[in-house]
Amino acid sequence: MLNHQWQLAARPKGHIQVSDFNWTTQELPSLEEGQVLIRNIYLSLDPANRGWIAEGGSYMAPVELGTVMPGICIGVVEDSRNEKFPQGTLVQAMIGWQEYMISDGRGLTAVPRIPGVPLEAFFTVLGHIGLTAYFGLLEIGQPKPGETICVSGAAGAVGSLVGQIGKLKGCRVVGIAGSDEKCQWLTETLGFDAAVNYKTENVRSALKAACPKGIDVIFENVGGAILDAELSLINQNARIALCGLISQYNAKELVPGPYMFGNILVKRARVEGFIVSDFIPRAMEAIPELAQWFLAGKLHYKVDIVEGLDQAPVAINKLFDGSNEGKLIVRISPEPAA
Amino acid sequence: MLNHQWQLAARPKGHIQVSDFNWTTQELPSLEEGQVLIRNIYLSLDPANRGWIAEGGSYMAPVELGTVMPGICIGVVEDSRNEKFPQGTLVQAMIGWQEYMISDGRGLTAVPRIPGVPLEAFFTVLGHIGLTAYFGLLEIGQPKPGETICVSGAAGAVGSLVGQIGKLKGCRVVGIAGSDEKCQWLTETLGFDAAVNYKTENVRSALKAACPKGIDVIFENVGGAILDAELSLINQNARIALCGLISQYNAKELVPGPYMFGNILVKRARVEGFIVSDFIPRAMEAIPELAQWFLAGKLHYKVDIVEGLDQAPVAINKLFDGSNEGKLIVRISPEPAA
Repeated sequence: MLNHQWQLAARPKGHIQVSDFNWTTQELPSLEEGQVLIRNIYLSLDPANRGWIAEGGSYMAPVELGTVMPGICIGVVEDSRNEKFPQGTLVQAMIGWQEYMISDGRGLTAVPRIPGVPLEAFFTVLGHIGLTAYFGLLEIGQPKPGETICVSGAAGAVGSLVGQIGKLKGCRVVGIAGSDEKCQWLTETLGFDAAVNYKTENVRSALKAACPKGIDVIFENVGGAILDAELSLINQNARIALCGLISQYNAKELVPGPYMFGNILVKRARVEGFIVSDFIPRAMEAIPELAQWFLAGKLHYKVDIVEGLDQAPVAINKLFDGSNEGKLIVRISPEPAA
Repeated sequence: MLNHQWQLAARPKGHIQVSDFNWTTQELPSLEEGQVLIRNIYLSLDPANRGWIAEGGSYMAPVELGTVMPGICIGVVEDSRNEKFPQGTLVQAMIGWQEYMISDGRGLTAVPRIPGVPLEAFFTVLGHIGLTAYFGLLEIGQPKPGETICVSGAAGAVGSLVGQIGKLKGCRVVGIAGSDEKCQWLTETLGFDAAVNYKTENVRSALKAACPKGIDVIFENVGGAILDAELSLINQNARIALCGLISQYNAKELVPGPYMFGNILVKRARVEGFIVSDFIPRAMEAIPELAQWFLAGKLHYKVDIVEGLDQAPVAINKLFDGSNEGKLIVRISPEPAA
């Protein structure tokens, strides 16, 4: 039985190129006792992936050249010699950019079938994206009812949930996104109080108008000029939850930090970086509330599904040019019948 | 009776010039019921003063042109019609850059005479400087025994206390200062584990050698390239207590934030600005411990006393070129006999 996988061939300079990967074929061995064969169904593409393959790495040592590109996936156990994961079990795991994986069960999380919950929800509201939004906003941002939250990358997978959770917690929520359509979705469907189109508006003036009482919490996904506009409007004791800096992930040279850095001092603000993996042990503090909101129709999301594993190296760039419409997912093979 | 005072004449462009102030003379009225006449003895010059007169202000509205330049001072009550502050009482107050002040008692803090404690100690270890070091390091920096603390502006009034408190709390302490003499004072007199001369050494390599286990707490007084060198060496969950950014207070244009800003995200670090005035209500949590350490000979400081109020506009620049040797104080008039 054959497996196809994308192996990292070169560290990208700037934007990711297809030539940074090799499309390879392997013959899969037969299963040993304790192992399972997983067919990959969905691959999550996330901004953090860019850091994993950067020179020097980011959170962890960089992915080695000549190995499979990692990625969070949902798959199905097609063959099993492990009683914990019988055939037909849906699992979430770091399968990576490949069609199949043989696993001894470590690092697999069973995904439950819940009526009314599509599988893709485990990549958004009920997965790493939901936990990022939940813990980043509530634990790091510490918003209080009536405060103003500003979210950059607001139409993205994380940002759109952050804003909705902020509204559920009684805050004023202002989002920054890259098109009028996205801004309209934020205010009309998701209930944001205001949205700023950073491609057509002067971000600082538009934000100032949208945040008449200043900004108490920034949920930052972008960095650069957008972060500067936000920082210029922070209130005393503001909290900045630093989730991502997508504007600089493809930079070929060192990028300066925010010009308004001094305002962190003057306003006695707190900037705190966080990573969802640090909160995984506490996932069950969040999942019940997220699930309850989702099943009650209070949390919306969009998915942008790209067909075919062969498209992964091209599709990932949609995250960086902002052309994705919702959570970016590659469909590698069909979902099994429920 | 005549008073002389320095009034702000212009907002400095870059470094402070004598011409930014006017030397003026006033006839003092006689005291009304409830008032006291205070003769100014010592004026504290602090980096934060620069922000008070900047366009747009910093923590507060900027000092108005044509008014006395503010400053923290110690004076003595020479005449009193207020029973709370009888003649001879030593007081700390925002007297400013002038010889005398008439006060109704609001904003005055009586300074006790303690055997073995010179008056100037109330500008260092037992005053706003000591509280800045104590709360900034312990509350914002949250150092744990065995962790590595890096202090910039380490030979300054605040930095030198921060390092000594860090040692008393069982940490490894590394300081950054601007001369070999200062570095020698840090390691030989104050007990710092290592010191880096930023004017003669490559700060990043020297810091890396001095912090073999990385940096857990940064106490930042400087900013710019020094902060970047420190940020490049932070450990996971590092805390950065942002006390000052003296390298940019005289900048005529916006200065970029740290190029290593992204490391705050990757290392899940926390950057928090703070201002000692926010901790004044909690001063009595700190003063007993600071006094105990000081009287036991465990906290050393230096003072750099400039003679004469006329020198204030020149002397303040010593803070920015690093030529001050210890806490910068202007002696305006003689201390009364104890």
